[in-house]
Amino acid sequence: MAENENSIRFGIMGCAEIARKVSRAIHLAPNATLVAIASRSIHKARQFAVQNKLSENVKLYGSYDELLDDPFVDAVYMPLPTSLHVKWAVRAAEKGKHVLLEKPTALDVKMFDEMLKACESKGVQFMDASMWYHHPRTAKMKEFLSNSDLFGRVKAIHSSSSYHGTPEFLENDIRVKPDLDALGALGDTGWYCIGAILWTMNQKLPTTVTALPTTIRNSAGVILSCSASMYWDEEQIVATFYCSFISHETMELAVCGSNGTFHVEDFIIPYDESSADFSFTSGAKFVDLHVGWNVKPQAVRVATELPQEAMMIQEFSRLVKGIKDHGLQPDAKWGQTSRITQLVLDAVRNSIDNGYEAVQM
Amino acid sequence: MAENENSIRFGIMGCAEIARKVSRAIHLAPNATLVAIASRSIHKARQFAVQNKLSENVKLYGSYDELLDDPFVDAVYMPLPTSLHVKWAVRAAEKGKHVLLEKPTALDVKMFDEMLKACESKGVQFMDASMWYHHPRTAKMKEFLSNSDLFGRVKAIHSSSSYHGTPEFLENDIRVKPDLDALGALGDTGWYCIGAILWTMNQKLPTTVTALPTTIRNSAGVILSCSASMYWDEEQIVATFYCSFISHETMELAVCGSNGTFHVEDFIIPYDESSADFSFTSGAKFVDLHVGWNVKPQAVRVATELPQEAMMIQEFSRLVKGIKDHGLQPDAKWGQTSRITQLVLDAVRNSIDNGYEAVQM
Repeated sequence: MAENENSIRFGIMGCAEIARKVSRAIHLAPNATLVAIASRSIHKARQFAVQNKLSENVKLYGSYDELLDDPFVDAVYMPLPTSLHVKWAVRAAEKGKHVLLEKPTALDVKMFDEMLKACESKGVQFMDASMWYHHPRTAKMKEFLSNSDLFGRVKAIHSSSSYHGTPEFLENDIRVKPDLDALGALGDTGWYCIGAILWTMNQKLPTTVTALPTTIRNSAGVILSCSASMYWDEEQIVATFYCSFISHETMELAVCGSNGTFHVEDFIIPYDESSADFSFTSGAKFVDLHVGWNVKPQAVRVATELPQEAMMIQEFSRLVKGIKDHGLQPDAKWGQTSRITQLVLDAVRNSIDNGYEAVQM
Repeated sequence: MAENENSIRFGIMGCAEIARKVSRAIHLAPNATLVAIASRSIHKARQFAVQNKLSENVKLYGSYDELLDDPFVDAVYMPLPTSLHVKWAVRAAEKGKHVLLEKPTALDVKMFDEMLKACESKGVQFMDASMWYHHPRTAKMKEFLSNSDLFGRVKAIHSSSSYHGTPEFLENDIRVKPDLDALGALGDTGWYCIGAILWTMNQKLPTTVTALPTTIRNSAGVILSCSASMYWDEEQIVATFYCSFISHETMELAVCGSNGTFHVEDFIIPYDESSADFSFTSGAKFVDLHVGWNVKPQAVRVATELPQEAMMIQEFSRLVKGIKDHGLQPDAKWGQTSRITQLVLDAVRNSIDNGYEAVQM
């Protein structure tokens, strides 16, 4: 979107592959404008600008600090390796920039809290860049899961998020490097499973988190694949998930309720940009002699004019606009959503590190 | 099917609801004939015959022993409460009857082995009445899962099997009575999850079985809902399942492989009798900028002329015919399939009973 006085002005810190998608999303969002790109070298920033056909108005910086010192940048999107998040997110907040941070947010909740505290004390908006929360399908899914007649109460949840990294990825990607993204598949694909399970539970922390003894690591000790279970004692609900860098692509959430069953198979990246589906079955009974069902899964299709990542930018920018121009407070929901995800992620990692013991939350 | 000299002659021992479905299946199978029904009272047997419009040629017995003494009965189908299986299956084998036994096969593998030993020593065929193995869809699913290009190696498995019992069921059904079906939901719906997971693994025993600490029991201590995980150490494969009497209907198997993903949502009882689906995704990649997938799940539909329960009767009768008329040996595969399922079921129950400790197999 062309810059106008209503647009929130974005700077991108880091030229990771995912930044290409988000730079397009900033372009598509009606209330956001990309005004600057920073990389550790001006050469890389220029390369990114050329590759993505960015406007000549986008300023290029050869260091993150220069971008943060630019008074015409309202907000930063930060696709840096996880180990760098705390340093740069805190610094961005201190400079009064609103922070849209790639996931996993931090190596642990202590570091996460440093960032959140910095954002809170400076009154800037924090959000992690989990895009799927912003797809209109997600709101529609929640409508079904909240319907006490059609779905009833949650009983069991299962999520899976995986992709098969190429040999090049498994050798060189930052996500398999202990000094850059020490959480590996748990931090990358597991973040989504944990997020989806907590989303289903309306962000209620589980009572107990227990990793399942099946962690696969690379030679540097980074998790390539793992599984875990969670329990909510009071509600007697169980959730399990599987995340991996060495399995075929999955992005699944299946929820079994008292009156209905819910499935989505592409919740993180929808198969198509323009619309996305989920399916449910409700009130199923077996026909006479149990030779079939009285109902079949129903597909629900939800169209979207903007892709989910542009919806995310739009929502983030709307919040920033309210703070910047109307004196509103940052929306604490997004920081809390990230924080609880990080807490459970920490618990899974602690359970793995402690011989798969149960971690009480 | 009208009786003829090639038909295997079935007796049904017990007039449970499921016997109605199997009596129809015997009628539909081209190589089987129902010749006798036994209940604990002749009145109940007569009632069953009337209700199911059985031929007048079907003999009615007021005791199981009378049926077992009938020399014109080749094989028995036994839908009795689990606690009665060992007594009656052993007695049936001793009388030279081939045994088609409802699941769960036994309260534990020790009892199961008594039955299997009796069948082996008398040279009669044993099979448990898990119908889904016999649907032609199941063979087609195995074809996909065995395809090293399309699916690759198994990485993770999840299964769910549940239904929401009516208040009447939860109060009075034999499956919630500790003296009749002490295994509750684990024995009934969990049997299918365990079976499906082991089927995926070509009947290879897991290294470890660990129940997840979420068992729900009724006031008499019978399991209404539980979850468990399994691991195959060498292959680094994880499986999880959820089974329940107090959740909406699910019959799911999801398998994540190295090159493909597999889903079936009605594996136990297909939505329709005449055909059944499963779906898979293979070789999925994300399109440029990761704004969609290059492939979507493909549905595979498999038609069947006979319902799966009639296919089961047909296969069982074919084996019995081979033994009876051609001196062949019983097919040991079916007993072994039941046995390994029972072994894992025992391990889940032991894990639950021992504070959710891991059980090494």
